[in-house]
Amino acid sequence: MTYCLGITTSSGLIMAADSRTNAGVDKVSTFQKLFDFSVPGERAIVLCTSGSLSLSQGVLTLIRRDIKQQVETNLYSCPTLYHVASYMGSLIRKMHQQEGQWLKKDGVAFSCRFIVGGQILGEEPELYLIYNEGNFIHATQETPYFQIGETKYGKPILDRTVQYQTPLETAAKCALLSIDATIKSNLSVGPPILLVMYETDSFEIKYHLKLSGEDPYLIDLSSRWQNALKEASEQMPDIPWRYSLKATEDSQPNTD
Amino acid sequence: MTYCLGITTSSGLIMAADSRTNAGVDKVSTFQKLFDFSVPGERAIVLCTSGSLSLSQGVLTLIRRDIKQQVETNLYSCPTLYHVASYMGSLIRKMHQQEGQWLKKDGVAFSCRFIVGGQILGEEPELYLIYNEGNFIHATQETPYFQIGETKYGKPILDRTVQYQTPLETAAKCALLSIDATIKSNLSVGPPILLVMYETDSFEIKYHLKLSGEDPYLIDLSSRWQNALKEASEQMPDIPWRYSLKATEDSQPNTD
Repeated sequence: MTYCLGITTSSGLIMAADSRTNAGVDKVSTFQKLFDFSVPGERAIVLCTSGSLSLSQGVLTLIRRDIKQQVETNLYSCPTLYHVASYMGSLIRKMHQQEGQWLKKDGVAFSCRFIVGGQILGEEPELYLIYNEGNFIHATQETPYFQIGETKYGKPILDRTVQYQTPLETAAKCALLSIDATIKSNLSVGPPILLVMYETDSFEIKYHLKLSGEDPYLIDLSSRWQNALKEASEQMPDIPWRYSLKATEDSQPNTD
Repeated sequence: MTYCLGITTSSGLIMAADSRTNAGVDKVSTFQKLFDFSVPGERAIVLCTSGSLSLSQGVLTLIRRDIKQQVETNLYSCPTLYHVASYMGSLIRKMHQQEGQWLKKDGVAFSCRFIVGGQILGEEPELYLIYNEGNFIHATQETPYFQIGETKYGKPILDRTVQYQTPLETAAKCALLSIDATIKSNLSVGPPILLVMYETDSFEIKYHLKLSGEDPYLIDLSSRWQNALKEASEQMPDIPWRYSLKATEDSQPNTD
């Protein structure tokens, strides 16, 4: 499995990914899922992938080939992030035409999603989610984050802490905590964690981080968070117990 | 959907459930999913259900019928919680024989799980998870909680805060927070929340609670928790950013 997320805030973007892939519990590997295709000074573009590794690697190979061969539409020529998302959707559709029927023969679902974030000179920063089918949506102030892969474990913390106005550095910490929560609760998501922070109008990814499972910062963060949750849960107000069976009276069988 | 959980601790048991059922987004209803079948002074037995409502209601009807008709093996005659779990497994299997083939015809999965917790005079308190197939497991000190239904959103908080030694009242708060997190992140789980706390050797469910979505305590709890998480996330140690592209250097295409 995989867990990646992207957050858009008023001062920039956060993108993060785990690095574990697995096919069954005895076929666990590490593969990078976050890729920086920026051209500093002109365009910042970061991709995160989920789904079948063969498909996302296929799309990445096509992206690199198109850049190398200077095909008319490539990641470096797209004038806006919208064009980037549309171009990536077309590559997913290409993979579908090429691989889809063979996967279907063995009952394997075609699964290949991307989160794309960045900013191109003359444009605002944007964050896109590109579906298996090649269609896509962009994040807004009301819905400032996207997740792909094993998304549920890490969603509550985002829902509680992240908004469009959240300071960028805090959003980055929340992204790490969201991935750490997922790693703790699900074996199919694992380190290293890749994290990037993009400041609006910098047109360059200046802030990178790669955290192994043994990284002292990650261990410290995880343990501080656990302590904070424990303390907070103990300090929640006392439960107003009602000393009667009323709440569950429907369950009393008629034993007449 | 549904979200129920049970926690076993050194001083007793916690069981909790939401009350929302849905078949699509335009068929949302409220049904009780936590039931107290205790006989005070002799046996405390609480059930939580998930899966198809028709199946769990069917099992509950069989339980009540067997009690009423004083069938040899019924919930009031079982000498241990193990026997209760085994009896309930047999009722699930009965439902499977009766309904399974008809559900299968329409491609509907047979889904009916229970968490059963309690204590019978002369025995220790126990917590069981009973699967669709009628087989079952019991919780231990190493794995002190069970969840059924929409389990992922509420798991990280349990993994961070709940252990066998956790004080009973704190475990109850964590159960509420786990359900509240799920409600906040997933529309298919909703109030009222039913919660019971069982103190070891009391042989009676003395502590009950039913919280509507508008209950001032639930609103207060939820907002305090949100504030605690926000504050904690802001107070996490500063991220040790590395100002290089090293972390993602694999992604740089060869543009020679």
